[in-house]
Amino acid sequence: MPASPATSVVVTLPDWVASVVDWGRSYATDEERMRFAIALSRLNVERGTGGPFGAAVFEQQSGQLVGVGVNSVVRLRNSSLHAEVVALMLAEQRRGSFTLSAPNLSRHELVTSCEPCAMCLGATLWSGVKRLVCGATRDDAMRLGFDEGPVFPASYDYLTHAGIEIVREVCRTDARAVLEQYAARSGPIYNP
Amino acid sequence: MPASPATSVVVTLPDWVASVVDWGRSYATDEERMRFAIALSRLNVERGTGGPFGAAVFEQQSGQLVGVGVNSVVRLRNSSLHAEVVALMLAEQRRGSFTLSAPNLSRHELVTSCEPCAMCLGATLWSGVKRLVCGATRDDAMRLGFDEGPVFPASYDYLTHAGIEIVREVCRTDARAVLEQYAARSGPIYNP
Repeated sequence: MPASPATSVVVTLPDWVASVVDWGRSYATDEERMRFAIALSRLNVERGTGGPFGAAVFEQQSGQLVGVGVNSVVRLRNSSLHAEVVALMLAEQRRGSFTLSAPNLSRHELVTSCEPCAMCLGATLWSGVKRLVCGATRDDAMRLGFDEGPVFPASYDYLTHAGIEIVREVCRTDARAVLEQYAARSGPIYNP
Repeated sequence: MPASPATSVVVTLPDWVASVVDWGRSYATDEERMRFAIALSRLNVERGTGGPFGAAVFEQQSGQLVGVGVNSVVRLRNSSLHAEVVALMLAEQRRGSFTLSAPNLSRHELVTSCEPCAMCLGATLWSGVKRLVCGATRDDAMRLGFDEGPVFPASYDYLTHAGIEIVREVCRTDARAVLEQYAARSGPIYNP
């Protein structure tokens, strides 16, 4: 009988994240929160640790940072580890809850440097965040050759009906610039 | 400055999985593969380790088992850890690749005891599997109160156009019986 393969997967952030995140800082506005997510996306490109996508989970009212994520697909050889999924996993772990809308928690939101793909839109719904803030658009990403999967206007409607507020194109130009920076460096377009 | 929160998440299978999986066995037909996925879903309920969902990744031609997953949302307090995502993560780790359709690999397929939610349908697309085999239907799950998220006929069309063959309702009655067993035990319906 062959040896059993490993039965665990470890999801980590790149080492540089610890040195650039100030966990004590509060992020007051959508723009401040988005600039942070975009900074993560840019550093992920500049440090060569992944695709041009960053995301963060905040407490909506206080602006406290709860979880951060960067695209980790190539680095960790794991197609599910988009920035949004990583940020949500770390936020839920920190809160000790599989839902960020547990009764004892204040409202949380997900801020992402680019509109989520089909997988991440589903992950957003299951996470219990009550607000989704996006930077670059689906079209911005697809112009680079990234596929966003089966996302339709009705997909966003579904989240809205589930009580999730959606805000789009916050700092879009800055977010898109990171996508273009990645393309200029000929970064790998996985699963094109 | 507050202490940094943990920057890693560990995804594990329940302990019982190692004792019930024979990694040397080959699964020849869709029905054999599905019965294995359903067995995982049933054991996950009976051992009290999670929701009534199981999934496995196989090499399509040889029937070799490559990765297994069970719903781990409540156990690991992580809303992204549906059975399909866990199986795909472990399969990709075993293959050392963020895509199961890398040039050096033979074709892989995902067999799941229930039609995937929106998140898992996206994860299926990104994983590089070339075939998706489903047991119970979306309606079977929704009758229990599980939400499947924004999945539309066009979502499946999208995967088909991407070259993924989709086979549905394999051993549906057996797969649905596990959902009903879970409901009878009043298992938690997370994110209803």
